[in-house]
Amino acid sequence: MPNVTLKKIADELGISIATASKALKGYPDISDATKKRVLDLAEKLNYRPNSFAQSLRSSESQIIGLIIPEITHDFFAKVIHGVITCAKSNGYAVIVLQSGDSYEKEKEQLGMLLDKNVDGVLISLSNNTKDIGHIKEIKSKGIPLVLYDRIYKLLDCSKVVINDKKAAYNATTHLIHTGCKKIAHIGGNLDPQTTIDRFLGYKAAIDDSDIEYDKSLVYIAKNLSFDDGYQIAEQMMKDHKDLDGIFALTDTIATGVLMKLKEMEVQIPEQISLIGFSNWFLTSVTTPKISTVNQPGFEMGCKAFDLLFKEIQAKKHGMLFEKEIVELPTELILRNSTKPL
Amino acid sequence: MPNVTLKKIADELGISIATASKALKGYPDISDATKKRVLDLAEKLNYRPNSFAQSLRSSESQIIGLIIPEITHDFFAKVIHGVITCAKSNGYAVIVLQSGDSYEKEKEQLGMLLDKNVDGVLISLSNNTKDIGHIKEIKSKGIPLVLYDRIYKLLDCSKVVINDKKAAYNATTHLIHTGCKKIAHIGGNLDPQTTIDRFLGYKAAIDDSDIEYDKSLVYIAKNLSFDDGYQIAEQMMKDHKDLDGIFALTDTIATGVLMKLKEMEVQIPEQISLIGFSNWFLTSVTTPKISTVNQPGFEMGCKAFDLLFKEIQAKKHGMLFEKEIVELPTELILRNSTKPL
Repeated sequence: MPNVTLKKIADELGISIATASKALKGYPDISDATKKRVLDLAEKLNYRPNSFAQSLRSSESQIIGLIIPEITHDFFAKVIHGVITCAKSNGYAVIVLQSGDSYEKEKEQLGMLLDKNVDGVLISLSNNTKDIGHIKEIKSKGIPLVLYDRIYKLLDCSKVVINDKKAAYNATTHLIHTGCKKIAHIGGNLDPQTTIDRFLGYKAAIDDSDIEYDKSLVYIAKNLSFDDGYQIAEQMMKDHKDLDGIFALTDTIATGVLMKLKEMEVQIPEQISLIGFSNWFLTSVTTPKISTVNQPGFEMGCKAFDLLFKEIQAKKHGMLFEKEIVELPTELILRNSTKPL
Repeated sequence: MPNVTLKKIADELGISIATASKALKGYPDISDATKKRVLDLAEKLNYRPNSFAQSLRSSESQIIGLIIPEITHDFFAKVIHGVITCAKSNGYAVIVLQSGDSYEKEKEQLGMLLDKNVDGVLISLSNNTKDIGHIKEIKSKGIPLVLYDRIYKLLDCSKVVINDKKAAYNATTHLIHTGCKKIAHIGGNLDPQTTIDRFLGYKAAIDDSDIEYDKSLVYIAKNLSFDDGYQIAEQMMKDHKDLDGIFALTDTIATGVLMKLKEMEVQIPEQISLIGFSNWFLTSVTTPKISTVNQPGFEMGCKAFDLLFKEIQAKKHGMLFEKEIVELPTELILRNSTKPL
């Protein structure tokens, strides 16, 4: 079936295109009778307005771009879900792109989003993004932008985050309060901010206790992966025979650690207590179930869209927009990989 | 920075807009010297063509729509990853929508995709889609369409599937060959095709063995969820004290079953063998690790995009397009929730 145009509707009813268009949009200067005739025919002919022409007129695509580091990732999948749910209920569609933690891809993808004339961009930085010129370009073009989760602190835009430092501090403090004295941290490369802050939270908790900070207890998981955790667990047990606590940067790392320690017949939590970060579903089906920090992914996605939407609206109506930094609460989820208080 | 227009470039170089446009597109009737001047200035001014105007001219958005039942789902997350990876490498962006297994939402979302003038649509039907009028509408408008995973057999379009019946047959047969005599199946509602086929595969394997088919061994998981598996496991043990094998429709159901059986101190696989379906990562971190059927999500997403792309190209060039049904291979992954042969 060929596309039905507004002209066809106007011709068929013997009215002008302008009148047909106004009728479809419910303009008050068009009689109810005409409106009804136009709407009935439009429905009968299955008319859909040409969104390109509409966009050209309004300079709005009602499409936003979402760049995430990784899709097959419980937390980020929840974020996508939150973004598209809230976007949809405001009439926005979401183009999803994955940077795969590559700075080059992230840059290229922002270019693609600009080419598609998206009305705004939501981005969580890749772990390898050190130069933010590409992000600044978006801002310099006046395109609404919100950073979520993996942010760049110095960039002046709205952000949705959790307090990683505080969450890590609480997790490590819990290990200390349940009697752990030699607590390792498996972290990542120093970027982005989340990684830095989780390490700082760990260190602050140690510094606030009677335990002396020992940098040989800090390990780096290059890919933040299950395999990293699996390998580092073995190394840790060689380096520190009296290790009794581990705070891992992510749940995938923690799960890798758990699997290896079980193979080595280390008793968890009796010999070593373990806490992960993010509350991936899989941490609730391991034996023992892994204690972790709940990171509200759906809420983060939804909030990020809300802030972006506000900025898009402000831009549209030429109003001043106040940037916001929203911090969502986290929660320590205590399961069986840690001892009771 | 205000948007740079082609007019500005033309004005600055003292050439016509048509010449500037042709230069950017590399037309042979423009001298290399002019091309260089235009390209250099375009780069310096950070010029980006207005995609709305481009789309209006070409009637192409280079955007496709992807409707999936659920994002926070290991298999579908892999599908999204596959689609956007292959789309991106062909210059296409992907609008992702989630039906949440609701027929109403699926219908509404297809409408949104039409409004955004997507060049094509990829869809995996919701578990509650019984009427496919909305899918037929897409086809009647001549919009390229590919169904993947949860398909509707009678719809005449390209499809990417696995052989669910064969995979289920092999999984159940493995249980039989390892000595199971009383094998239950936890399935879902009768739609969509994947659910029907997995049940038929289970039943065919039983029928081909010495075991008599017993319909009281077939259970229905309404939401295909972890909680369903957890609850049904208890019911099963009450109904059939001598149960020795379970083939579950999905890995989430299988994981729920495993957790409950462990709580009930049922020995797995000694007393009951268990096989899931999909090869979610979490099945590899439970104790015991769960045997399952690997379903190639990334490959399915990539292949679905390929077929859609072929159809878009054929439509663009007015060529005939041969619909294809691609069946991707699956693999039985044997772990510790089943006995060795």
